Amino acid sequence: MSDAPTLFDKIIRGEIPSYKVYEDDHVYAFLDISPQSDGHTLVVPKESKVHLHELSDDASAALGRVLPRLCRAVMRATGASAYNVLQNNGGEAGQAVLHVHFHIIPRVAGDGLKFKWSPTELTEDHAQDLLTKMHEALADDL
Amino acid sequence: MSDAPTLFDKIIRGEIPSYKVYEDDHVYAFLDISPQSDGHTLVVPKESKVHLHELSDDASAALGRVLPRLCRAVMRATGASAYNVLQNNGGEAGQAVLHVHFHIIPRVAGDGLKFKWSPTELTEDHAQDLLTKMHEALADDL
Repeated sequence: MSDAPTLFDKIIRGEIPSYKVYEDDHVYAFLDISPQSDGHTLVVPKESKVHLHELSDDASAALGRVLPRLCRAVMRATGASAYNVLQNNGGEAGQAVLHVHFHIIPRVAGDGLKFKWSPTELTEDHAQDLLTKMHEALADDL
Repeated sequence: MSDAPTLFDKIIRGEIPSYKVYEDDHVYAFLDISPQSDGHTLVVPKESKVHLHELSDDASAALGRVLPRLCRAVMRATGASAYNVLQNNGGEAGQAVLHVHFHIIPRVAGDGLKFKWSPTELTEDHAQDLLTKMHEALADDL
């Protein structure tokens, strides 16, 4: 738990108004008031953590469980057939509000939104080095 | 279930080799061989659906549950402190493989990766119209 309540803590508590799409014991979803596209929705865990890697398994599972249903609702309301789900952690990743949030961003042809991809190549040696470190990390993290 | 096995179905079954990071009953994670950044990892449900909105609640909850742990492993292996989690649905959203997948993309300052944001404004009338449709969709989707 962070020391000070985040913007999203205040929205969840109703201290700041929001266009609420959905709420359950673990999750709160509402319309982004600066939408990237029509129907842009934010999905937030009530557990107040800055980054996804700090979220408890249970809070993250509860959020994962409702994502498909929320995506269906966003698609039906907007008529969009494509969408991105985006979740940013840390300043270098574009995180603006320091409380975990998933964006559901409906997409239509020619909307001008774009994730700038710059694919590189993975060498066998580097892959094995990464896997060794990741497997150690996962083994230590039970 | 799609008719033909997807690339990721074949990877999950071991018919195509992969750099496996993690596997459980519902989830398979492996290194992207065309990484956007060092440690770029793909997290895939074993349930074979094209889009997130088609995934079962249980498969999506299982995927949500392990995301924080996988993010911790990716951070520890790469030393990155920021990352995006990105999930694309449909051609207009940049989906390339027709099987649900979450990207974990480590980020560092000056890496040149970018999501092109174009924020717009949400009017009160339009917000209420969207909410009406979304609440109807959610009520019909129990």
